Amino acid sequence: MGSEFFTSRLGKCVGLNSFRSYLSEFISTFLFVFATVGAGMASRKLAPATTSDPSSLVGVAVACAFSLSTAVFISANISGGHVNPAVTFGMAVGGRMNIPTAIFYWISQILGSIMACLVLRTMTVGQHIPKHPLPPEMTGFGAAILEGIMTFGLVYTVYAAGDPRRGNFGVIGPLMIGLTAGANVLASGPFTGGSMNPALSFGAAMVGGSFRNQAVYWVGPLIGAAVAGLLYQNAMCPSSSPDSSRGGVSEVGV
Amino acid sequence: MGSEFFTSRLGKCVGLNSFRSYLSEFISTFLFVFATVGAGMASRKLAPATTSDPSSLVGVAVACAFSLSTAVFISANISGGHVNPAVTFGMAVGGRMNIPTAIFYWISQILGSIMACLVLRTMTVGQHIPKHPLPPEMTGFGAAILEGIMTFGLVYTVYAAGDPRRGNFGVIGPLMIGLTAGANVLASGPFTGGSMNPALSFGAAMVGGSFRNQAVYWVGPLIGAAVAGLLYQNAMCPSSSPDSSRGGVSEVGV
Amino acid sequence: MGSEFFTSRLGKCVGLNSFRSYLSEFISTFLFVFATVGAGMASRKLAPATTSDPSSLVGVAVACAFSLSTAVFISANISGGHVNPAVTFGMAVGGRMNIPTAIFYWISQILGSIMACLVLRTMTVGQHIPKHPLPPEMTGFGAAILEGIMTFGLVYTVYAAGDPRRGNFGVIGPLMIGLTAGANVLASGPFTGGSMNPALSFGAAMVGGSFRNQAVYWVGPLIGAAVAGLLYQNAMCPSSSPDSSRGGVSEVGV
Amino acid sequence: MGSEFFTSRLGKCVGLNSFRSYLSEFISTFLFVFATVGAGMASRKLAPATTSDPSSLVGVAVACAFSLSTAVFISANISGGHVNPAVTFGMAVGGRMNIPTAIFYWISQILGSIMACLVLRTMTVGQHIPKHPLPPEMTGFGAAILEGIMTFGLVYTVYAAGDPRRGNFGVIGPLMIGLTAGANVLASGPFTGGSMNPALSFGAAMVGGSFRNQAVYWVGPLIGAAVAGLLYQNAMCPSSSPDSSRGGVSEVGV
Repeated sequence: MGSEFFTSRLGKCVGLNSFRSYLSEFISTFLFVFATVGAGMASRKLAPATTSDPSSLVGVAVACAFSLSTAVFISANISGGHVNPAVTFGMAVGGRMNIPTAIFYWISQILGSIMACLVLRTMTVGQHIPKHPLPPEMTGFGAAILEGIMTFGLVYTVYAAGDPRRGNFGVIGPLMIGLTAGANVLASGPFTGGSMNPALSFGAAMVGGSFRNQAVYWVGPLIGAAVAGLLYQNAMCPSSSPDSSRGGVSEVGV
Repeated sequence: MGSEFFTSRLGKCVGLNSFRSYLSEFISTFLFVFATVGAGMASRKLAPATTSDPSSLVGVAVACAFSLSTAVFISANISGGHVNPAVTFGMAVGGRMNIPTAIFYWISQILGSIMACLVLRTMTVGQHIPKHPLPPEMTGFGAAILEGIMTFGLVYTVYAAGDPRRGNFGVIGPLMIGLTAGANVLASGPFTGGSMNPALSFGAAMVGGSFRNQAVYWVGPLIGAAVAGLLYQNAMCPSSSPDSSRGGVSEVGV
Repeated sequence: MGSEFFTSRLGKCVGLNSFRSYLSEFISTFLFVFATVGAGMASRKLAPATTSDPSSLVGVAVACAFSLSTAVFISANISGGHVNPAVTFGMAVGGRMNIPTAIFYWISQILGSIMACLVLRTMTVGQHIPKHPLPPEMTGFGAAILEGIMTFGLVYTVYAAGDPRRGNFGVIGPLMIGLTAGANVLASGPFTGGSMNPALSFGAAMVGGSFRNQAVYWVGPLIGAAVAGLLYQNAMCPSSSPDSSRGGVSEVGV
Repeated sequence: MGSEFFTSRLGKCVGLNSFRSYLSEFISTFLFVFATVGAGMASRKLAPATTSDPSSLVGVAVACAFSLSTAVFISANISGGHVNPAVTFGMAVGGRMNIPTAIFYWISQILGSIMACLVLRTMTVGQHIPKHPLPPEMTGFGAAILEGIMTFGLVYTVYAAGDPRRGNFGVIGPLMIGLTAGANVLASGPFTGGSMNPALSFGAAMVGGSFRNQAVYWVGPLIGAAVAGLLYQNAMCPSSSPDSSRGGVSEVGV
């Protein structure tokens, strides 16, 4: 009977912890998307004549870097601080989390993003959610490659931040993850929009009312994330028996 | 007699420590408001023709992020580094500090903000303290919602930074708190002004001479802060008996 | 004889360590002034028509924040990372270093600043070292007050970063010191130039050939630094016997 | 036989670790050059009329600071986080790594840079890789001196970040290295382009199709790096017998 009591208690605890993780991903993704999409709307409000200019790009990139850093920070010790379906996918591919949990993470992240975009559109009357129209000379294939490379860098940084060899360096991991994203927005803003995050793109598309080029922001990031997960797990981790550290492991990342 | 001596000494020590906390909040809020309001005045001085432009917004947001980070940093181990009546309110609602102390914190923060705005207006002859006029299409209700959401994120980050599970991550807590505020200024600058801080808005209004829309900057942030405190305390903290960790607790936050 | 050998060796070691400190302050101040003054020259080169604009101010402030952070970082464990005669003065007033050492620090810092300005003027042919002309409506007294308040914040942050109660937080101290300076440049750039550093102002004035308003950048910062040192040492440090922790103490700060 | 087994196993391990280091330098340099060169292309796309403007410079400098920080962070515990042939050279000169390893590092870094520029040019159809044309009044000699001084500061910071006396401060080392580079880009952008990295300049030149002034970006940085390595190793390290800590040492830096 003592054993049964322990089991049921454990089950309940796991259930509570899981729900806490999903809520944490929802809140972090909501706050990240709110700041990043909001920064795009704010620069358009301030400079409506131009489609974009260098200082608007700096504003969006800094908002992305700062808000992603804190979004990862506030959920790092609860849900692993993914804030991004591509990161969750890269973690699952690298064997760091199981598939059912990953699916609930995706749902939480996408709901958080949609909610953030809805709030922004409703409260700032008359403003539109910024879309990421590809410039005419860009192909969807080229954009997907760029998004994939940048998401590779992002997920690789997430893996590096969670690497136990990192030691004390891990302390600045959440900051580094945000700075990676910010640098990539500066590099790719006028070419692909610099999303690296399918939840961000999906929420903006759903609330903005246009799913044009949506595939670019799913195929590229997911492939980039998978490559990063497989590469780091197999080539960068000096585990004596690499196979044993994967498989059924379901510990939450970062 | 030894016991009496010890008691009186303890009482004096607590009194001294309390006064030190209030002074610390005063200084931190003064320095934060000085830099943030000053940055708004500086961009208006440099670009007087426009009401605002994207690079002015970047300047104000960076000043807010940098100065809030350091304001929290310098008072974190003395007063908890609130620098904001909404943070103090969120801490009190979550049971992290008692009401009398919170009231003295509020007074210290508001005095610091008024003093900073007075110094800025006096020393930069002919400059005006920037107001946050809501754009015509925004409603006060919408602005309060936006301010409330952003303050929710800020107070949630303060709670996360003080979470003992955070371990070494806590080291970058003051930085993360500042970056959250900076990202939100970039997202909301042209819509609500991006205050998230009733002391900042009150000081600027008093010295600037206009209390128009002041309620927006009190109601929104205080509700957002209360929600963050209740949510983190009840849903995110895995304490075995959540009730015992609240109640009469008066430890100072962060 | 063994004792004599030990004494002479100790003397030599202390001498070497002192010289190392002076060299470290020279290098740090050189690199800081190089980046900060260079950033002012770079924006003038890019936008020669205007005296200044918001995005130039952001550039100078970010250069100041980034370079001061690293200048403090690289000398923190060698010389204490002052990089600023006002910080050295504030440390001496608070009893953290003795007067002779402070004088050698001042000389090292001023030489570093002059050298940096000389290199910049020589190598970028035809460029001028930016001066900080006060705008017509500003009085020298007002400018000195503003510079004094900002230097107070800077030196207060230096004291806070070196406070042992800070614990692990101290790790981000050098970053916080830089961010304080950057935020203040954003707040005061068009009003006083945002120096907070007599060595920076002196080097720029000597190489630029104009000592106009130089007193503003000495009187204000030195008074602000002294107030910060006295206040932190006496009101913020909870030492059981405050008098014993001052006096002949000559440990190097931070 | 047990001994032979151990030797061959050790040999294989060293071989694997070496390859892992080269791959890590390749990936880090690829991601750094992608973001930094991409940011230059992005600002040119947004403001094609001007050669450059202050806010474009801020964008490139922030991208450089953020991406170098993370590039160093993700390879710090694997390859030492050089990401720059000049840093590798400075480490070799200071006796921190042996020559054969340094050569493989150089190859990895240069390949990473070329690959990043190739991807950028191919995917962003019709865009050109930015060159760093020296302004007419600058001499190649002056530009090499400026690049040398800035690389001195960068390599000095790398040495300082790896200094064991740094203690906990080392945690923010990767961030500080990136911020140094960002500050220097703000100071030198319109004068020399602010490279400080021969691999970056070589990759951009090869893919951009012009090796004009290439010597500036090799001679300056390599000399600056060598001076930093010799100075830090001999004057700043308080080793009892400085000679013994150099020589055949091949530990990987940072």
